[in-house]
This record gives sequence, structure tokens and C-alpha cells, in this order.
Amino acid sequence: MTTSTSSSQDFRGWRADIEAAAQRLQQQGRGFVRETPLWRLPASALGLDAPGAEVWLKLEHLQSGGSFKARGMMNRLLANPIPEAGVVVASGGNAGIATAGAARALGVPCEVFLPGVSPEAKRQKLRDLGATVNVVGQLYADALEACLARQKATGALLTHAYDQPEVVAGAGTLGREIESQAGGVPDAVLVSVGGGGLIGGLAGWFEDRTRVIALEPEGSPTLYRAREAGEPVDVAVGGLAADSLGAGRIGSIAWEIAKHHVPEALLLTEAAIRDAQQWLWKEMKLAVEAAAALPLAALHSGAVRLQPGQRVCLIVCGANVDPATVA
Amino acid sequence: MTTSTSSSQDFRGWRADIEAAAQRLQQQGRGFVRETPLWRLPASALGLDAPGAEVWLKLEHLQSGGSFKARGMMNRLLANPIPEAGVVVASGGNAGIATAGAARALGVPCEVFLPGVSPEAKRQKLRDLGATVNVVGQLYADALEACLARQKATGALLTHAYDQPEVVAGAGTLGREIESQAGGVPDAVLVSVGGGGLIGGLAGWFEDRTRVIALEPEGSPTLYRAREAGEPVDVAVGGLAADSLGAGRIGSIAWEIAKHHVPEALLLTEAAIRDAQQWLWKEMKLAVEAAAALPLAALHSGAVRLQPGQRVCLIVCGANVDPATVA
Repeated sequence: MTTSTSSSQDFRGWRADIEAAAQRLQQQGRGFVRETPLWRLPASALGLDAPGAEVWLKLEHLQSGGSFKARGMMNRLLANPIPEAGVVVASGGNAGIATAGAARALGVPCEVFLPGVSPEAKRQKLRDLGATVNVVGQLYADALEACLARQKATGALLTHAYDQPEVVAGAGTLGREIESQAGGVPDAVLVSVGGGGLIGGLAGWFEDRTRVIALEPEGSPTLYRAREAGEPVDVAVGGLAADSLGAGRIGSIAWEIAKHHVPEALLLTEAAIRDAQQWLWKEMKLAVEAAAALPLAALHSGAVRLQPGQRVCLIVCGANVDPATVA
Repeated sequence: MTTSTSSSQDFRGWRADIEAAAQRLQQQGRGFVRETPLWRLPASALGLDAPGAEVWLKLEHLQSGGSFKARGMMNRLLANPIPEAGVVVASGGNAGIATAGAARALGVPCEVFLPGVSPEAKRQKLRDLGATVNVVGQLYADALEACLARQKATGALLTHAYDQPEVVAGAGTLGREIESQAGGVPDAVLVSVGGGGLIGGLAGWFEDRTRVIALEPEGSPTLYRAREAGEPVDVAVGGLAADSLGAGRIGSIAWEIAKHHVPEALLLTEAAIRDAQQWLWKEMKLAVEAAAALPLAALHSGAVRLQPGQRVCLIVCGANVDPATVA
């Protein structure tokens, strides 16, 4: 990986922001963000042969709204004045659900913009959370354009799925929570990457005190391609985890943090991800979305080799999935 | 509830047996029994309004084999010499799965007897665990008879789903684990009852240090009817949770323990149980079997009222369910 010297000099640490986010979520967050279980298991429980090794499953799919995004979205809302027009977001996935849930918890209005291709089930879920759902155009770009226009017209607070500082700092509270629960840092943290909000937050918290390993499906390699190119580049996205990992380009904030604190980005096959997702249900009774299965897929496929005595933390990041599809 | 004086005098405590079971599972159990997460949440996270109250979700559905029965079955196997013929059991449900899994972990043969009505999916699951599956007759009684005959012929070790001392003591390790994780006892423990192995173990561990509340579906009220009759009686079983709570009569061991340490047995409607099961998926992303939803059903239906400041532990006991049915 090439790291530009100039950006190294400009790079600011994130730990103070993450600490502030954690305090904010706890003191003003109305209990919306949950402390999720950290499940420490011998590696053998995950079917891995490494004497004395431990796997820590961070069950963040049990977070409010079913994904880690609750942390970042609530932090974004709490860290800014919320206009009368409330909050706007263009997302039918985890970011939209988290924004709508956070807005409901705070009692402020939320508008979500979705394209015509979005399924009715997602729209209804957002309506159930109290959001006003606007269906605009056919593609995501159409919905985003309408969302930005609305923001400009009303002054509503915009949330972005991953590339806002408050969103990254909020996600970083997950790293802080892991360290607090374990009373220390693991030897490595395995995490899937889409737009990079989650890995940005984790690497921003842990810095070089652990090895944060980025995992991406072959079908949506945003960080992998950015590392090849030396800068964020647009990638085509598709495949099993596209629903939640299908950002078209790594976020600029995550890119800066990753350049400093993410030594490895690995690609995993669709088959390995699907196998791990099914294994998590069959053997562990964890019903999770495909994106949450990448860490186990990395271990089961041998992309990451667990050494004797190592303690590796797997971020189980979301469960917004039709449960009929996990078995 | 009438408590017979004579049995009170004969009643022996269970804590030493449970302590021994815990040591045995840890030292000789080859990691088969997992320490499952205890998830402490403010009551509001469960949609309950009781200031300062906490709900502790004991995520025992994440246990090996998907239910608490791993504890009792492994303890039964470890506490007895295992003959060359191995282990036999008549069950296609959680007890069969746990017995087969424990036998596999110890490397001993396991035969499971099932009636013709058992679904092929259950038979295959047991075969996947290395068990020999014998399909005998049409009804459970036929399979049980054949199982007992085999036991007599070969001297194999028989496991019973709930009414053996080692099975109850093994289940009791769940109570010990909760207390150890929380550093104290909750104000109440809510648990569903079938044959009574689980509640027997929990009440045997906690004794009168907490309030263990028995919960049953209206469709299979084994403890409720026993309390009415003053002794275990046969009950017709059916309904949503019959698959795992459908024992036809409360076990004799559980009955003795419950007479001393279970002050309440409550019945819940099918609708309340189903609502709670769906809520656990929708709001908490826990995919669990109906039997595991009774504790939340008791709180949501108002059968048990959470008081301000109380700490109540809900035993989430199993997840052997088609995930397509939890939403």
C-alpha cells in the first residue's frame, strides 16, 4: 500500500471524537443505542483448530434497527441542531432504518427518499418507524438527487450512510465498547467493508493497537481497488452482500483512516460468504445478513489464519435479512 | 399450592450436584457446552415501561445444538460410564439433538429412536451429528418402547429428556452461569416449562434467593395441572410450542423441586407467545423457537408485571426452528 506523506502529516486522530460520541449516546441517546454482547468462545466452537485461540463474536447485529448504523446515525443527530424540518436520508437499507429509528427515538420528523426499484417491504419498514417515505425516479441516484434538493429547500439535517465525521465517530464507539467489555484489545479485528464507516470508526479507535483487517466480497471491492489505485475509485458493485456492502466507492474519511491503520484488505468469494452465513445459523443460531458473515468466511476459507493463542474479534454487523434465507 | 410435609423433610438440595456438574462440563466436556451471553438491557429496550428496571436476556438458544439441553445431556454422559454400545435416546427434538451432539463430542456411538411421524429434516439433522437413526412404529410411544428394549439388550446408556438427576443438575448450571456473569441474582427468573428439566435445574440452583416463575402455554400445562391436582398428572398437549414444551406430564424430579422453590406457574395464550416470538425477531433480531418466547410473552401480556427498579432474567431457551417461521 502506498501512503502519501502529506496526508500522514495532516492526519488527525479520532479517539477524542469517539469518546465524545460514546458520552453523547449514553447521556442523550434515550437508550436507543444498545450495548451488544461480546461473546468470547474457544476457537474450536467456530470449527477452528488453533490451541488456546479465542474468537470473540461482537453481536452487533442485535443493535437497535438490526445493524451497527444506529451508533453513527444517532451520533449525527445528537451532535447537530435538528431543524424543524427534521432529518432526511436517501437509503432503503441499514442507514435509512437507523436514521428513521434514531429520529423516532428523539421525536423528530424523518423523510426517507427511495427509488422505484426499492421493494415495498423496505418502504413499509420505514413507515413503521414513523418515517415519511418518498419514492422518486427509478434509480438510487434519482432518490439521492431528490433528497439533496429537499435538504436544500427545507434545511433538514442530512445523514449520510458512511462519509460524515459524526457517523464514523459513532461507529467507532463499537471499538470502544469491545475494549471495555474485554478489558483489553484483541490481536486482530475482522470487519466487512462497504462505504467504510464501520472500519473507519474501528481503526480510528484501535489505531495500531490491534490489526484491523478489511474484508470485502469480490463483487464490491471498494477499499481493495482504492489501495490498488492509491485513491478512492468507483467500482461496480453486485453479488450477495451488495444490499449492505454495495457502496460504489470507499468514503473519503474511511480512506484516510485506513491508510494509516488498516494494514490488510482481503477479498472473499461469494461462495465462502454464503457458506459462513449458513454456518452461523446452523451451528451458532445467529441469523445474520451476508455482510456479517465475511469475518467468519475469512477464517473458514483460510484467507486469515488463526494462530495458537490468538484472540480475534469478528464483527457481526447486521441482521436485516429475510430469515427464510439464512438456512 | 399445597406442599406435602413429608416430601419437604425428604427434600435434598441440588446445589452441590449442580456445582459438580459445572466442574465436570468444564473439565471433561471438550468445550461442548458453551458459556452463552447474558444480555442486560434497560426494560425500555423490550418495549416495557418501568423506570430503572432491567431485563436480562440469557441467550441460551446460542448453546451447542441450539438449546439448553446440551448441559444436561453432556452431564449425563460424563457422570456415567459409557458402555461400548454407547448412548440411546428416544427424541427427535432438542433432547435428541443434544444427546447426539454430546456423544459426537465424546466420540461414543449414539442411537436415536423416532416414530414414523417424525419429519425427514429432523432425522437428517441427527444423522449429520453422527447418530444412527431408527424409525420405529408410528407414535412416540412406539419409538420409546423400542429404545428401552434396545437399552435392555445392549446395556447402552439411556438419556431422558428431563427426568434424570444428571439432566436436571446439568440444566442447573445455567442458573449458576447467570449468577456468575451478573455477579448476583436477579429479582425474578422467567422460564418456560415442558417436562421441567430446565426449571428444576434453575430452581435447584437459585432456591429461594430469587423468584422462579414457571410459564406454560395453555396448550400444554404440565406444571399448572400438577399444582391443581397436588401431584403430576397426564395432560393433553398441543399448540405452537408443543414441539419442545409438549411433555405429557411434569417430571418427578422437577415436581419435587418446584414444590419447594417455584411459587408461581402461569399460563399464556398461543397468541401472546406467537406475538413475542415475532417481536424477538423484529425488534431484537433473535430467531428463536416458540418455547423461548414465553418469558417475553409473560411481560408483554401483563401476566407478569415488571416493577420499577426490578431486574428480571428471561431464559431464551432454544432456537431449533425453521427460521422462515420466526418473522
